[in-house]
Amino acid sequence: MGQMKKKNDSTPLAVILMHCPDQKGLVAAVTNYLFSLQANIVDLDQHVDLDSGQFFMRVAWELEGFVLPADGIADDFKKNIADKFDMKFQLHITDRPMRMAVFVTRLSHCLYDLLQRYKSKEWNVEIPVIISNHNNLRPIADQFEIPFHYFEVNPENKLEQEENILHLLGEEEIDFLVLARYMQILSAKMIAKYPNRIINIHHSFLPAFIGARPYHQAFERGVKIIGATSHYITEDLDAGPIIAQDVEHITHKDSVKDLIRKGKDLEKLVLARAVWNHLQHNILPYKNRTFIF
Amino acid sequence: MGQMKKKNDSTPLAVILMHCPDQKGLVAAVTNYLFSLQANIVDLDQHVDLDSGQFFMRVAWELEGFVLPADGIADDFKKNIADKFDMKFQLHITDRPMRMAVFVTRLSHCLYDLLQRYKSKEWNVEIPVIISNHNNLRPIADQFEIPFHYFEVNPENKLEQEENILHLLGEEEIDFLVLARYMQILSAKMIAKYPNRIINIHHSFLPAFIGARPYHQAFERGVKIIGATSHYITEDLDAGPIIAQDVEHITHKDSVKDLIRKGKDLEKLVLARAVWNHLQHNILPYKNRTFIF
Amino acid sequence: MGQMKKKNDSTPLAVILMHCPDQKGLVAAVTNYLFSLQANIVDLDQHVDLDSGQFFMRVAWELEGFVLPADGIADDFKKNIADKFDMKFQLHITDRPMRMAVFVTRLSHCLYDLLQRYKSKEWNVEIPVIISNHNNLRPIADQFEIPFHYFEVNPENKLEQEENILHLLGEEEIDFLVLARYMQILSAKMIAKYPNRIINIHHSFLPAFIGARPYHQAFERGVKIIGATSHYITEDLDAGPIIAQDVEHITHKDSVKDLIRKGKDLEKLVLARAVWNHLQHNILPYKNRTFIF
Amino acid sequence: MGQMKKKNDSTPLAVILMHCPDQKGLVAAVTNYLFSLQANIVDLDQHVDLDSGQFFMRVAWELEGFVLPADGIADDFKKNIADKFDMKFQLHITDRPMRMAVFVTRLSHCLYDLLQRYKSKEWNVEIPVIISNHNNLRPIADQFEIPFHYFEVNPENKLEQEENILHLLGEEEIDFLVLARYMQILSAKMIAKYPNRIINIHHSFLPAFIGARPYHQAFERGVKIIGATSHYITEDLDAGPIIAQDVEHITHKDSVKDLIRKGKDLEKLVLARAVWNHLQHNILPYKNRTFIF
Repeated sequence: MGQMKKKNDSTPLAVILMHCPDQKGLVAAVTNYLFSLQANIVDLDQHVDLDSGQFFMRVAWELEGFVLPADGIADDFKKNIADKFDMKFQLHITDRPMRMAVFVTRLSHCLYDLLQRYKSKEWNVEIPVIISNHNNLRPIADQFEIPFHYFEVNPENKLEQEENILHLLGEEEIDFLVLARYMQILSAKMIAKYPNRIINIHHSFLPAFIGARPYHQAFERGVKIIGATSHYITEDLDAGPIIAQDVEHITHKDSVKDLIRKGKDLEKLVLARAVWNHLQHNILPYKNRTFIF
Repeated sequence: MGQMKKKNDSTPLAVILMHCPDQKGLVAAVTNYLFSLQANIVDLDQHVDLDSGQFFMRVAWELEGFVLPADGIADDFKKNIADKFDMKFQLHITDRPMRMAVFVTRLSHCLYDLLQRYKSKEWNVEIPVIISNHNNLRPIADQFEIPFHYFEVNPENKLEQEENILHLLGEEEIDFLVLARYMQILSAKMIAKYPNRIINIHHSFLPAFIGARPYHQAFERGVKIIGATSHYITEDLDAGPIIAQDVEHITHKDSVKDLIRKGKDLEKLVLARAVWNHLQHNILPYKNRTFIF
Repeated sequence: MGQMKKKNDSTPLAVILMHCPDQKGLVAAVTNYLFSLQANIVDLDQHVDLDSGQFFMRVAWELEGFVLPADGIADDFKKNIADKFDMKFQLHITDRPMRMAVFVTRLSHCLYDLLQRYKSKEWNVEIPVIISNHNNLRPIADQFEIPFHYFEVNPENKLEQEENILHLLGEEEIDFLVLARYMQILSAKMIAKYPNRIINIHHSFLPAFIGARPYHQAFERGVKIIGATSHYITEDLDAGPIIAQDVEHITHKDSVKDLIRKGKDLEKLVLARAVWNHLQHNILPYKNRTFIF
Repeated sequence: MGQMKKKNDSTPLAVILMHCPDQKGLVAAVTNYLFSLQANIVDLDQHVDLDSGQFFMRVAWELEGFVLPADGIADDFKKNIADKFDMKFQLHITDRPMRMAVFVTRLSHCLYDLLQRYKSKEWNVEIPVIISNHNNLRPIADQFEIPFHYFEVNPENKLEQEENILHLLGEEEIDFLVLARYMQILSAKMIAKYPNRIINIHHSFLPAFIGARPYHQAFERGVKIIGATSHYITEDLDAGPIIAQDVEHITHKDSVKDLIRKGKDLEKLVLARAVWNHLQHNILPYKNRTFIF
């Protein structure tokens, strides 16, 4: 749970997100293993999905007092637990803030919201770069004293510019990307480089209104509710695993402009919830779903 | 507003829903007209849709003290107002409860909910018939002492049975139809007979998950919100004007069975809101949208 | 999780809800204990409350294949686990439907909703008695073929009638009570007899608008949201542990009558969620809070 | 409606909010009056509150083409309409952005959110001053290039400092005040100077959890929903007319810190909705309620 990590701000944690075919004794095996190594477990949440017969678990413990060094955990866990249960797992060590790159185009509301959470220390994160295919949000980056990188993109130079972006992301040791209303489709190569580490915000309650101008689509269809969806980017446009969604009721009095205005607040909120859960290592994607512990 | 009508339960009202191209002086023209005929207006709500340039209004007044007799209003309003402004309008006189036919198949939750509102006098409505293509909900009809009509439908007799249903609806002087999880697609003829008078409940937040098994679709897509939508039936499946929608947050812990269980509560609620607004003559459909005053 | 139990409808489960001061190795100790007795755990959820330093857990496993007989579990668990960790626990065996008594006064909406869920098998529950201090809902009980017991209550006979009610509840082997808008305050004796087993629905978002006529209070205060709260009854009026709450937005157009009408739908929904969680043995009350697994 | 004003950004409007005892012909009288003066009405919304027997209306029309000059409307409307119907009204002319003063103490989230909406032109407003009883948010004011005024307040100098603040507000021709988590109680004099023009955000769903530390109170009470409330300041602490409220579901997993974190997003949203409606002149306070057209 989040509160635990906050209490232990100075105490780095190890977090493992795991899944495997369900069988008897899995929780006992994992908790025994950790207990035998003197782990102080600060959070454990598990779920069995009966349709798929899969077991999912997130467990977090303090590194302090743990018998193994941080860089020895993955191998040891693999040998003693994962290999025995045909288990896939990710290990996260929270000994430093994650490094997040923000991608924007022309709209500022999500960018402001992310930067405000960063500057006010609501989030324990680093934002070393803001990347854009337009120059008009540069003043906001300047205002918050964050390097702004402009990569002009056109059909001819698109792949070349992506190489330049990838190079920059590598140099800056970026952990994950946030597309804060970034109006470019990423290449398969870029997506493959950051699997389940590129968070997008789409301005509709997916799967309704995929693609461009969802508020106009929503208005045309006459819906009584609008929404926003944050998801990990996959090669399938607007079809990646959903992390968070929220909605707001509207009426016939709301014009398209009102939908856009109200939707901006939804986008800010939903994107922030997704990023927060990503920062907490709460999200376990499995096939096209997410388990959010 | 609803409260007004309740206060005046014994006082019949005239309600006009109207729309026309917007122009100066429309509200003044209509209110002057009514005022000159001694109308006591108990509700007035108007809206101008700037994109389409259309004016929409609902006005309700007491018949008591009004100069014209109820059956003379339509002609007089047409001559003095509607014709001058190229206006379309519907007139409703609330001097008797509306007569509603409920269509069901196998699921009982919406049927129970509708009948409970009827029996407890929450709604001022008559339910002279329950119509079904299965027999298994007959005991509920018996329990609430409402005639249950079974029309076995198969590909061969479908049109013939619809004729029989239409005949019954005519005999019973039915004003509008409620499809409370009725699992048959209505013919174009039947839909044309009751334009904007057939209310359906679809178990998703349309336009997402059109068609069959929307909860299974929602589970597969990994959405974090499920919904329900009530709409008027048009020839286009699940694409008619939306009357009401609502949603509920779900998590990865919810199985398809949980979605179905939680969704039933949404369906009851959303269908009831749509029927209530229809009973109040609050709904003005225009193109594929609804204005709900 | 609920879905698990549904899949295993024919397989009785043991469910333990436990809490104790937090310490290392608790999850390992409990899961090891169960694993050593051949338990097939179908659900496990734990939480540590950092402010109070308490550990909370719900674990459910199939009785089939478990080494101990159902009636030997409590003693064995106490000796081997609970006593070692200063733990309090409740054990539930799901080998039969729970028996629920419904208390009503004059309002029918919650009663209908509960009965509909019972009759349509949405819930696995028995309702052997409906108890009321008025006679006017008797026809609904008759309609659903459930014994209706009328206990006329006045200041003189109140305690005597409660004795009669308690006697009836004992005879009918009632597991828990649902006050579905029952307008009588229970005596301390009755509350003590069914600790955390009397579920009430209050028609406001507690702690706002305690006491009588909450919708009138809400209207007077000019709130923009109304709510409903279900909670366990304690001696402190409207102050027991909250199980479920929900709300709905309102506007200045809503009269008190509209609040009452919209509130009824909230009350039905919120009470049903509370009863469902109680039936699943999902609720662990601790001090004045509930942990709902 | 808002969309209208947006379309007519360059066209100033006149807006009248009015209320009086209800009687026949009110809408006709007002619309006739405006029509006779060549008004192009762009929005009209009325409501009759049956309990109080009061009539409420908001009407907005374009100044362009209107027969009267802007500074002649109030007197003329008073003479021809208001005096005849015992009507109270406020007139607003939208020929310039309103001037808003923001008051803060230590918390930055609402301040950032307001400034972002201002800088991105989401709102048509001027923010000439930020006023605080602490210095720690000065860097944000600097960052957005808005004058920051520090008024150190202690029990001895409180009234004197309020005089200084009032002087500054007067000099800056401030139209209304926004208390964005300002942790000082205003004097009666200051409140009287800006009636229904001081907007506060309280971090609970009032009237629950009045006063200090509402999230701690909410946690202690074990509620399942938290909320935020924006209201006009009156002399009665946290009891002024409510403008907007919203809520979020929480669970037993949320610590007080989580409530605070989640609550901040609610506070931003609810305060922004209140300010937006105030900017649109949509809010008609009456006794302790608001009518929001």
